[in-house]
Amino acid sequence: MDPSSTALPATLIEQAASRLGCSPADKKLAFHLDEEDKLKHLRECFHIPKVKDLPPTDLTLVNGEESCIYFVGNSLGLQPKKVKTYLDEELDKWARTGVHGHFNGQRPWALADECLVDLMAELVGAQRHEVAIMNGLTVNLHLLMLSFFKPTPRRYKILLEAKAFPSDHYAVESQLRFHGLDVEKSMLLIRPREGEETLRIEDILAVIEEEGDSIAVILFSGVQYYTGQLFDIPRITKAGQKKGCFVGFDLAHAVGNVELSLHDWGVDFACWCTYKYLNSGAGGLAAAYIHEKHSQIICFSELQLSKGINGFRLSNPPILLVCSLQAGLEVKKPFVKIITPPQIEERGFQLTLTVSLPIKSVFEELEKRGVAVSKSGFNFLFITF
Amino acid sequence: MDPSSTALPATLIEQAASRLGCSPADKKLAFHLDEEDKLKHLRECFHIPKVKDLPPTDLTLVNGEESCIYFVGNSLGLQPKKVKTYLDEELDKWARTGVHGHFNGQRPWALADECLVDLMAELVGAQRHEVAIMNGLTVNLHLLMLSFFKPTPRRYKILLEAKAFPSDHYAVESQLRFHGLDVEKSMLLIRPREGEETLRIEDILAVIEEEGDSIAVILFSGVQYYTGQLFDIPRITKAGQKKGCFVGFDLAHAVGNVELSLHDWGVDFACWCTYKYLNSGAGGLAAAYIHEKHSQIICFSELQLSKGINGFRLSNPPILLVCSLQAGLEVKKPFVKIITPPQIEERGFQLTLTVSLPIKSVFEELEKRGVAVSKSGFNFLFITF
Ligand SMILES: Cc1ncc(COP(=O)(O)O)c(C=O)c1O
Ligand SMILES: Cc1ncc(COP(=O)(O)O)c(C=O)c1O
Repeated sequence: MDPSSTALPATLIEQAASRLGCSPADKKLAFHLDEEDKLKHLRECFHIPKVKDLPPTDLTLVNGEESCIYFVGNSLGLQPKKVKTYLDEELDKWARTGVHGHFNGQRPWALADECLVDLMAELVGAQRHEVAIMNGLTVNLHLLMLSFFKPTPRRYKILLEAKAFPSDHYAVESQLRFHGLDVEKSMLLIRPREGEETLRIEDILAVIEEEGDSIAVILFSGVQYYTGQLFDIPRITKAGQKKGCFVGFDLAHAVGNVELSLHDWGVDFACWCTYKYLNSGAGGLAAAYIHEKHSQIICFSELQLSKGINGFRLSNPPILLVCSLQAGLEVKKPFVKIITPPQIEERGFQLTLTVSLPIKSVFEELEKRGVAVSKSGFNFLFITF
Repeated sequence: MDPSSTALPATLIEQAASRLGCSPADKKLAFHLDEEDKLKHLRECFHIPKVKDLPPTDLTLVNGEESCIYFVGNSLGLQPKKVKTYLDEELDKWARTGVHGHFNGQRPWALADECLVDLMAELVGAQRHEVAIMNGLTVNLHLLMLSFFKPTPRRYKILLEAKAFPSDHYAVESQLRFHGLDVEKSMLLIRPREGEETLRIEDILAVIEEEGDSIAVILFSGVQYYTGQLFDIPRITKAGQKKGCFVGFDLAHAVGNVELSLHDWGVDFACWCTYKYLNSGAGGLAAAYIHEKHSQIICFSELQLSKGINGFRLSNPPILLVCSLQAGLEVKKPFVKIITPPQIEERGFQLTLTVSLPIKSVFEELEKRGVAVSKSGFNFLFITF
């Protein structure tokens, strides 16, 4: 099946079955679809548990030697096989060189998070300087809210889904209390209509239209953790901003799952974790985004030195978490990408490559083999004549 | 040499040399001291880099095969050998069981930080419920300051060392600006006397006495990162509190380095990193402490559910960082400790042991061998007749 097709999966399956002349429930069809799956090579990138190793398994019902059917990537993604390689590389560097690892090697620890920013920014459709990789999701949400939620007597509400993730509820409540506000009055919860499970976009827009003048911040999820509903991020953003609200998103269930264009959509801020669809392991490094238009926003770091989201990077980055996240992010994109336009009339003699590895190592390997190229930042390689 | 002796090291060395009948600079003395070193077994717990592997080494000057002399534990501690074992255990669990690791195994990921709280609390002289293991140092400092620094028109200053660590300066500046205060007027910096390098306790106490009424928070380091000066934490704490200030400490260079009794000293709050003297690796998990007397302090988490420092635990704990920290913490204390009083007249038939490993594994191994005992929490084992 073509993953970019917009036809309903059921329709596609029926069409394929009729082409094969079998029922949609026939095993033959399943094998055929596996055969045709354009993403099937990705399966090889992960450790897939065996049925017998899952604690609740009843071995009288199943063959324990088979791979399990892992449908909980929304809770914790599987382990990319590269995690161990990358961790071992850094453990080895630490064992062999101690503190010198701070500024040496493929992932200089002092800047390790920066090695992954390009990969991450691409995944959420943001500029490099709009994204920081740090902390946990909820920690980032608080840091962002401390900057964006500045209630005044007339504009003091936070709008969120009634079924927002519990930790987001708590975060909003804490923020309201932090500012001495009445939670009941200031927390605006939006619910599905009676008898419905998901929110209608027209209802969301109507609440924003009606209450917008008293709303300071709109906090929505990108994909609802409970129903799986993908919200219309650009429309919600525009509607909120038209009313003078800041609009932010918890992208825990959206990143690595759906296409995002945070920058173009003008989203004010966002944060997400990486242990679900980005496979970084339990409690992996989270990330946060602030649109570049807010480069003057109050932040918590070296005020004079860093602007925008970079002003929120507070502590030394945890190298072990960078390793696991790198492995997860690399699965999500091709290894090398040419960013120069492919049309010959749209470019000259230069090809610019982004590489989903810290460029230094690629560069060094090329130089060792007598190839002279130049590099820039953490991920760019220039090939010119 | 007896590490608990209070005599000057120079005196002890001279005494030992005269006992051996050699000069204090004689190699014989060095070997003799090594021989007698009560802590020498600890060296075996770490990976010590070889001279040849340190990038700046000039191999015409030294023997590259020798172990380096590692005197930068204040920047990054060496790698405990157990780090890899513990990481591999959790990678294996993740590979084999996916999401089931959240609540299974030696370090159930969802609560992994809790496995280490007893070890950490003991190290800083705090109660278990006064310590949380989370985030980075500066992130924790901000979270704590957001709760403790509540400026009023009359009490709005923060007192800190003029030579506080740069990130602490920035944190204080950010906090002041966050509250709309003038940094010049509100940041009270204390300097050594002209011509001196370290701060005199009488000068610190004098500033507190004079300015205390306008000081909201006193933020000091435990051990000065620059001079190595150990401050008199209990006296500074008492003096500040007498004036109505909150007193907090950045213990980055104190924890694992000097003895601490945060609870008994009545320190209001503290935070520290673990990648220096606790050997958890670059960007390892930090920790924070709030005295139990502040159990009602405003915090950022599930307000109704968690009190005190536990109200600051915001995100899922990062299992990979827990592994490396566990290895570091275990080096710092004996493996098993009996906490029941040793005097026979002060106890009955019960012995309570704390074990510096998640108790579950020890418990299971005992049960497998036909030993019936009981356990409690993450670290307690009860042996009774
Ligand atoms: C005294 C002190 N405070 C704060 C920090 C900053 O720690 P982090 O970057 O982990 O937040 C350091 C780091 O070396 C330090 O030595
Ligand atoms: C939608 C959503 N928001 C927030 C969180 C909390 O993330 P963390 O505990 O890593 O801060 C989760 C975790 O599952 C989530 O699914």
